[in-house]
Amino acid sequence: MARNGLLITFEGLEGSGKSTQIERSCEYLKDKEHDILFLREPGGVPLSEKIRDILLDVGNTDMTHECEMLLYMAARAQLVREKIIPALENGQTVICDRFLDSTLAYQGYGHDMNVEFIKDLGEFVTEDVSPDLTIIFDIDPAKGLGRIKGVKDRIEQRDLDYHARVQEGYHDIARQNPQRVKVIESDRTIEEVFERVRQYIDDVLGNA
Amino acid sequence: MARNGLLITFEGLEGSGKSTQIERSCEYLKDKEHDILFLREPGGVPLSEKIRDILLDVGNTDMTHECEMLLYMAARAQLVREKIIPALENGQTVICDRFLDSTLAYQGYGHDMNVEFIKDLGEFVTEDVSPDLTIIFDIDPAKGLGRIKGVKDRIEQRDLDYHARVQEGYHDIARQNPQRVKVIESDRTIEEVFERVRQYIDDVLGNA
Repeated sequence: MARNGLLITFEGLEGSGKSTQIERSCEYLKDKEHDILFLREPGGVPLSEKIRDILLDVGNTDMTHECEMLLYMAARAQLVREKIIPALENGQTVICDRFLDSTLAYQGYGHDMNVEFIKDLGEFVTEDVSPDLTIIFDIDPAKGLGRIKGVKDRIEQRDLDYHARVQEGYHDIARQNPQRVKVIESDRTIEEVFERVRQYIDDVLGNA
Repeated sequence: MARNGLLITFEGLEGSGKSTQIERSCEYLKDKEHDILFLREPGGVPLSEKIRDILLDVGNTDMTHECEMLLYMAARAQLVREKIIPALENGQTVICDRFLDSTLAYQGYGHDMNVEFIKDLGEFVTEDVSPDLTIIFDIDPAKGLGRIKGVKDRIEQRDLDYHARVQEGYHDIARQNPQRVKVIESDRTIEEVFERVRQYIDDVLGNA
């Protein structure tokens, strides 16, 4: 594909302040006259939102790890082809709340599944579309979980050990992809965290 | 796993008379005192039936081939672990209306996708559980489609060329797996077709 736009993805545990920083980042890029497409995973298009409903439904207590991983991938396959690739071809800046790294961290590391297998499947699912920049908001899992307001979904309900493995996964992913993936300690003020985000965004704009 | 039961799968184009033959086969095996578990794909367990609803919904016109293939696999991953493996361990005879060969034929061959990739993914999804016997009911695609009664689902709505590729796929699968896969020309009387089915079932019972 002729890739004219940037793909920036945001990752992190629940309660890491990710949503606030994404909002700020979208505003920042709009001020710089970027044509922004904001998407969330799982979801982002009607079909993938239907898959999201199954994934997050607390009633689906007996979902196997394999089924869960494949449903995330199915939702992503649709989103990539229906929205992300056309937007990048059109020169839009695509901001994605979670992407393949979430499946590696939550399903691969969280469930002790074969991470290399998930990576290979991910290449098929994404048509090798990889983010230009991925920012992981890092937070102590116990602190993050404590910040969740309202009713927890099927993933949020999992125990602290699970979320600690997810965090370890994110750290591994960052170590393995130092160019693309940046980790920001998010237990600071919104302003302090955004200052770091802005610097990483400026870096990738400078390189783009 | 300690596999004590038999897995028999039935495959074929729409309108091939598959359902009638499956009924007869279940009766035949029950008469032989087999403890039968009958399952259909996609579906067979509540979670996979939810995925089935998405797959067959004629409203999902923009579903990509990749998403479709992964949804079939997700439904299968759940069914294999929740029902098929426990049943085989318990010595039940599992009769499945469609299995991995359907995904190879309908998605792999039908959509011109990478069949080897789908096979590899299939091994992960099924935990290498392969049928002891697979019977494909072969019918001229035009004749089969003409026999569908009522409203067609999302897959049945596809054109004749698509269904001809699926048939070619089934023929390839049979050529590649002569021990496991048997093709029966289904444009005969129900009795004539079942006589062939019964022989193949007897053969696998004799070998089991």
